[in-house]
Amino acid sequence: MTLSSAPALDSLNDAGRSLLFTEARTANTFADVPVTDAELSQIWDLAKWAPTQANLQPLRVVYVQSPEARARLVQHMSDGNKEKTLAAPAVAVLALDSRFHEHVSTVMPFMPQLEEVFEGNEDARFSTARLNSALQAGYFVLAVRAQGLAAGPMSGFDAAAFDADFFPDGRLKSFMVVNIGHPGEGAFRNRLPRLDAAQVVDFA
Amino acid sequence: MTLSSAPALDSLNDAGRSLLFTEARTANTFADVPVTDAELSQIWDLAKWAPTQANLQPLRVVYVQSPEARARLVQHMSDGNKEKTLAAPAVAVLALDSRFHEHVSTVMPFMPQLEEVFEGNEDARFSTARLNSALQAGYFVLAVRAQGLAAGPMSGFDAAAFDADFFPDGRLKSFMVVNIGHPGEGAFRNRLPRLDAAQVVDFA
Repeated sequence: MTLSSAPALDSLNDAGRSLLFTEARTANTFADVPVTDAELSQIWDLAKWAPTQANLQPLRVVYVQSPEARARLVQHMSDGNKEKTLAAPAVAVLALDSRFHEHVSTVMPFMPQLEEVFEGNEDARFSTARLNSALQAGYFVLAVRAQGLAAGPMSGFDAAAFDADFFPDGRLKSFMVVNIGHPGEGAFRNRLPRLDAAQVVDFA
Repeated sequence: MTLSSAPALDSLNDAGRSLLFTEARTANTFADVPVTDAELSQIWDLAKWAPTQANLQPLRVVYVQSPEARARLVQHMSDGNKEKTLAAPAVAVLALDSRFHEHVSTVMPFMPQLEEVFEGNEDARFSTARLNSALQAGYFVLAVRAQGLAAGPMSGFDAAAFDADFFPDGRLKSFMVVNIGHPGEGAFRNRLPRLDAAQVVDFA
């Protein structure tokens, strides 16, 4: 009989499952309740702990909060997303840092050679950044919900035009916009169907 | 004074934050406690509720559980990942479905034209599949933790060789391997540093 000294992990309670997964919904309208900069910074303080490849953490977050910047962002959104993005209490643009490897000495101090590996291989750098920043975007959406806020993630925007406008040095590449706030009246549409395990999960 | 009729959302309690984020750790060894197929299927039943672009859900999960299949998988892993992948109670290979758009009539019934749009544009199809399957991989890792299991996500494997072996028709493209189980003795290494909000978060 094998006994492990590692303590058994709890599982998430029903309230937590509802909040993050089973009852959580994408909000399409927001209540007129502000979201503070401190609340927004706390989202990263939670999301940052979830794992990335070699701890590289390529995700960057820009909260577009000033009226001037918000108006510029909305110009780059597709028509169906303009109005709700203009009205959201907070809007996060999620981007990858194409030079994430400059932080290797901080995030992976015992493998400093990784910095040179990525410096010399732009393809590996971008594919690592793309995969891991999107993985972190998943953590980010659930961290928004963990803070008691509703998230409205969107891909319907002109990322190249946004990047030219907001990131003119070319280092950051945006890939998702997330409206954030407290849900308003009529925030939630009918839920769309999910694929069954039989369509998604297989055993080999 | 503006009042919204939408109920305020709770925030995640400390136990839930610890379990999913602040105290959760990637396991490097596992206890000799089996994980059942039913437990594995329940991970998708939780992860599936988190949002994807146009509800397209391109992630597919293959649990490589039979000794024969596990041995084949391990051949495609990098050396540092072979032993722990062989020993893990369960191993999920996460892949994208490059023909996810065949499910449009199920997942997005009021926009059936999306199926043709993606059929005619392979670039858009792959970039949508890549971004959203990685986003779902983030949900998947946290859903594993929500079930009281430890996850060990890895990118160190030869995806092309794995795909040729396991997905010979070319439809699925693997991008991550996740060891799953109850943590064993010495499962957790010292935690690596995370980037500060000052390095990740900006306000515009």
